[in-house]
Amino acid sequence: MDLEQRIQLAETRIFKAVFPNTTNHYDTLFGGTAMALMDEVAFITATRFSRKTMVTVSSDKIDFNMPIPSGTIIELVGKILHIGNTSLKVLVEIYVEEMYAFGRQKAITGSFTFVAIDEHKQPVKVVD
Amino acid sequence: MDLEQRIQLAETRIFKAVFPNTTNHYDTLFGGTAMALMDEVAFITATRFSRKTMVTVSSDKIDFNMPIPSGTIIELVGKILHIGNTSLKVLVEIYVEEMYAFGRQKAITGSFTFVAIDEHKQPVKVVD
Amino acid sequence: MDLEQRIQLAETRIFKAVFPNTTNHYDTLFGGTAMALMDEVAFITATRFSRKTMVTVSSDKIDFNMPIPSGTIIELVGKILHIGNTSLKVLVEIYVEEMYAFGRQKAITGSFTFVAIDEHKQPVKVVD
Amino acid sequence: MDLEQRIQLAETRIFKAVFPNTTNHYDTLFGGTAMALMDEVAFITATRFSRKTMVTVSSDKIDFNMPIPSGTIIELVGKILHIGNTSLKVLVEIYVEEMYAFGRQKAITGSFTFVAIDEHKQPVKVVD
Amino acid sequence: MDLEQRIQLAETRIFKAVFPNTTNHYDTLFGGTAMALMDEVAFITATRFSRKTMVTVSSDKIDFNMPIPSGTIIELVGKILHIGNTSLKVLVEIYVEEMYAFGRQKAITGSFTFVAIDEHKQPVKVVD
Amino acid sequence: MDLEQRIQLAETRIFKAVFPNTTNHYDTLFGGTAMALMDEVAFITATRFSRKTMVTVSSDKIDFNMPIPSGTIIELVGKILHIGNTSLKVLVEIYVEEMYAFGRQKAITGSFTFVAIDEHKQPVKVVD
Repeated sequence: MDLEQRIQLAETRIFKAVFPNTTNHYDTLFGGTAMALMDEVAFITATRFSRKTMVTVSSDKIDFNMPIPSGTIIELVGKILHIGNTSLKVLVEIYVEEMYAFGRQKAITGSFTFVAIDEHKQPVKVVD
Repeated sequence: MDLEQRIQLAETRIFKAVFPNTTNHYDTLFGGTAMALMDEVAFITATRFSRKTMVTVSSDKIDFNMPIPSGTIIELVGKILHIGNTSLKVLVEIYVEEMYAFGRQKAITGSFTFVAIDEHKQPVKVVD
Repeated sequence: MDLEQRIQLAETRIFKAVFPNTTNHYDTLFGGTAMALMDEVAFITATRFSRKTMVTVSSDKIDFNMPIPSGTIIELVGKILHIGNTSLKVLVEIYVEEMYAFGRQKAITGSFTFVAIDEHKQPVKVVD
Repeated sequence: MDLEQRIQLAETRIFKAVFPNTTNHYDTLFGGTAMALMDEVAFITATRFSRKTMVTVSSDKIDFNMPIPSGTIIELVGKILHIGNTSLKVLVEIYVEEMYAFGRQKAITGSFTFVAIDEHKQPVKVVD
Repeated sequence: MDLEQRIQLAETRIFKAVFPNTTNHYDTLFGGTAMALMDEVAFITATRFSRKTMVTVSSDKIDFNMPIPSGTIIELVGKILHIGNTSLKVLVEIYVEEMYAFGRQKAITGSFTFVAIDEHKQPVKVVD
Repeated sequence: MDLEQRIQLAETRIFKAVFPNTTNHYDTLFGGTAMALMDEVAFITATRFSRKTMVTVSSDKIDFNMPIPSGTIIELVGKILHIGNTSLKVLVEIYVEEMYAFGRQKAITGSFTFVAIDEHKQPVKVVD
């Protein structure tokens, strides 16, 4: 399997219905819930690409372009953005779809950096 | 957009890392957590296909073929299986991947039936 | 203790108030939350009957007869339905009560099959 | 329906499997999780007795007699203890059962006082 | 570090926004959620004072003086109230602030008793 | 109340015990849980400073300096970092304390930008 194929296979998607247990008192998706899901999709993307122990090092600027109302559907998409020696960067985008109409919009964008470690917590190569 | 295309676009995926907050005391994914996720992916698939108000009518036999250990990754895939007049059926499959090895296995299979309703809770056509 | 008595003692009940953290955007109990609770009550019923390690093998058809509105009370009741050699079947019913009126209705019915296993994950007799 | 019968019918039970999502780092049930469940069972008991809007006024001394290990089953039982004019008191007991042995022990005891209110938040009679 | 300083340093605060995932169907903070947070802040206060293994022994009377509406902010404050030989008592107060006005009110008061134990679960001195 | 005093009063703290329901399969605090708590403390800080409707616009680079093991205590501290015309920036730091030893370390640092809006979702001055 070549690198391009591994990148493609690592792409990871999470759909979620925005129900009351994820919203704030404005009746929109709570920013913290969005960030928790973004980290989860980024972690899974990084792990599925490298099949190594990956730990979050940092997140870059995350832009919340628009509020996400309750009663919508969101899709998070995680993609490998950059492959370093012992680290890699994952792009995460959140799209929002109304339930009762076709069409979708990008609502939130961010990226996360992970480092691959061995059992002694020392950095190792992401790709052998 | 023809029916075949709508079916394809409705396909819905949820990846999830199996962390301690989703497991039972055997350190495997709690069956109830799996079922809750299956209903969510089925509901989103049904709604994204029909863009109508969909309510769960029943789930058919759900087979738990193998336990899903903590520290794995699962992917739920929801697909339109059958389109009736006012109802439709969604197939849900859960695949499990080890974190540190390539390859995946089908772990759980089930299907869910939804009916489309209008604002008076009367059944309406799934596809106009 | 004879079998009939064990069956009776295994009966397991879970009451729950339907609060916003369990509902969908229709303001009714989310089907997936109901299923997670059904699996939990079934698992406890099976374990309390056999006092063996029980794993979920399958759920049979689950019928959602009526939506369960927010602000109601539900009771799940798990009962031993059938005792096989290494497996058993548990019936689960969900009743709904309005908060401010007497009376109750059956809202959801389903059944779950469990198998008893030993420490090597081999099937063992449910009742010695 | 006389008072004695209403008291009996109001008795409310919640079984729960003690899984990792409810435990602290000692691998025993987190006290706060126990208290949240106690308040829920007490609230349901009070509401099912009175069928009025009930609000928690206070909890009396709650005794945690023994830690509840992960991998056990608990049963919460709520019973009407005292009926005042506009208030009532509910006794809540938590019993713990090992999964793989018969027998049970009382682990936690407490009581909760509720007051019945009307739509203007004024106290009203618990029993008309 | 003298005792007075340890008491001061042990003071522990938890702010929380009252969002729909913490409320009941009256749209106010569910009493059980409040109690779970109170036990958490009390446990952290006790542990940060003693730096020993602390287990909850009991909670004294908890007074719910006023309902806490959704869309407010609460602050829990835990303080060492009394230091015994092998036990200590923590006072917990919950204050409520409106989001869009200055000022705050005390809404809930309670206290919790903890005992310090060693690795054999025997009581040990809270302060050496 | 002058600006300096408002900044001081807006400082917001959340303590949390790192229990299994917040950890990943490495038995350390899941990064997404940390981010959700950071957004919550930042939102509360921003709201308590401005007493206006605040919405998250973006988070800047968040550095995860060290993993946070299960069985520790964390404190999140939110502080007003910069006050713009219609927006403000909040600094969030997470400190980790071992349970059974004094001392603490900074583990995670990040900042969040919020904008103040009126009922028509138009930006308004953060400070009148």
